[in-house]
Amino acid sequence: MKTFNPAKPDGENETLTIALPDSGTPTLGNTYQVPARCGIAVKMTAGQSIKITNPSGHQVCDFWAFYQHDLNEYLSMEHLRTSLGKIIPVPGDAIVSNMRRPLLTFLVDSSPGIHDTLIAACDHQRYQQLGCNDYHDNCTDNLRMALLAIGCQAPAIPSPFNLWMNVPVDASGNTSFEAPLCSAGDYVVFKAEYDVIIVLSACPQDITPVNGANCQPAPVDFMIFIDD
Amino acid sequence: MKTFNPAKPDGENETLTIALPDSGTPTLGNTYQVPARCGIAVKMTAGQSIKITNPSGHQVCDFWAFYQHDLNEYLSMEHLRTSLGKIIPVPGDAIVSNMRRPLLTFLVDSSPGIHDTLIAACDHQRYQQLGCNDYHDNCTDNLRMALLAIGCQAPAIPSPFNLWMNVPVDASGNTSFEAPLCSAGDYVVFKAEYDVIIVLSACPQDITPVNGANCQPAPVDFMIFIDD
Repeated sequence: MKTFNPAKPDGENETLTIALPDSGTPTLGNTYQVPARCGIAVKMTAGQSIKITNPSGHQVCDFWAFYQHDLNEYLSMEHLRTSLGKIIPVPGDAIVSNMRRPLLTFLVDSSPGIHDTLIAACDHQRYQQLGCNDYHDNCTDNLRMALLAIGCQAPAIPSPFNLWMNVPVDASGNTSFEAPLCSAGDYVVFKAEYDVIIVLSACPQDITPVNGANCQPAPVDFMIFIDD
Repeated sequence: MKTFNPAKPDGENETLTIALPDSGTPTLGNTYQVPARCGIAVKMTAGQSIKITNPSGHQVCDFWAFYQHDLNEYLSMEHLRTSLGKIIPVPGDAIVSNMRRPLLTFLVDSSPGIHDTLIAACDHQRYQQLGCNDYHDNCTDNLRMALLAIGCQAPAIPSPFNLWMNVPVDASGNTSFEAPLCSAGDYVVFKAEYDVIIVLSACPQDITPVNGANCQPAPVDFMIFIDD
């Protein structure tokens, strides 16, 4: 019987080999690229900020944050929706964990503000159901591998904060998967209120139009900095 | 530092002592009561059905299902919303797990069909934030205790399927916590497609009007049966 292991990927890609040095420690002010279809984990100290940029304008970035000193505490979209009283956060909002603590503050959004908190990260099973016979890169495995690459193990697969993912909910509660509404170069900024490990996955979805009508996954850039 | 342990309750109530015999094994056709503010776990074999009844008409029931042979597989609201293309399931829908397998099928709903898949189970931190100084019964601990009472440990706190919880989402994505819209005696029926452990918590929320305008938590009834 196949069992569910939150830490173990169902397959592999270069996410396993592109970790930042020193177990995910960034050089402040340096711009890093998450290659298309891959994931990277980066450690942030409380008070630092992360700027995440969408160079193509059509790429979704699955986004997670874990408390560095207890990986069992992580951003929780179901707790976030409760604390916000809405389904999509905006600048100024606290982004809370499953302990209802504000691990991050959402500081800036240069895009139209369309992100998603409702949809699971894509995974091996999703692509099998979409007709893939072979292994397909997926955000769940990118999360697992990005953590393994810095010596950590995913304690669970939290529901991701899907940056720029456009899943409107109509008055009847129906959802649809649409292309992102942002422009090339749009970015978001989050401040770490606690020491966290951020994981970014440049979503490899190339079957539904989540990453734009052309279904062409692209890279995502990020930078860690201190706002003086 | 307080860490997050998915298996360990932050406090206790009688959930620890009201387990069904033989590690949660029901007598088919027997009606059981989940006392107000408490939780119970019950084992179902594939092919059996569960009828969950709302005697008062104003009580929310937090609902989880775990695959008996691998508790790391459980109902996942974020995977469910993806598979359904909507935020609230209706009779006929498959209720899927984090492995995207239909652990249950939603068979019958005598109520107006207003349930919730967006909001986290209430927990110790939630009641502290709502102003409680002492321990307050909560659905997260009821889940933990209901599993402990049959000799199991929660591997995570999955986002619950909140039966009869009324959290409308408006066109701007804003949510609100409203009283249930069902009537006394309304019920839902789910069929187990695999061997599962169901956990029901009669939500102890008495500060917000989730359990009705009078904020009076009430019991929930259930019965396991085979539909011939």
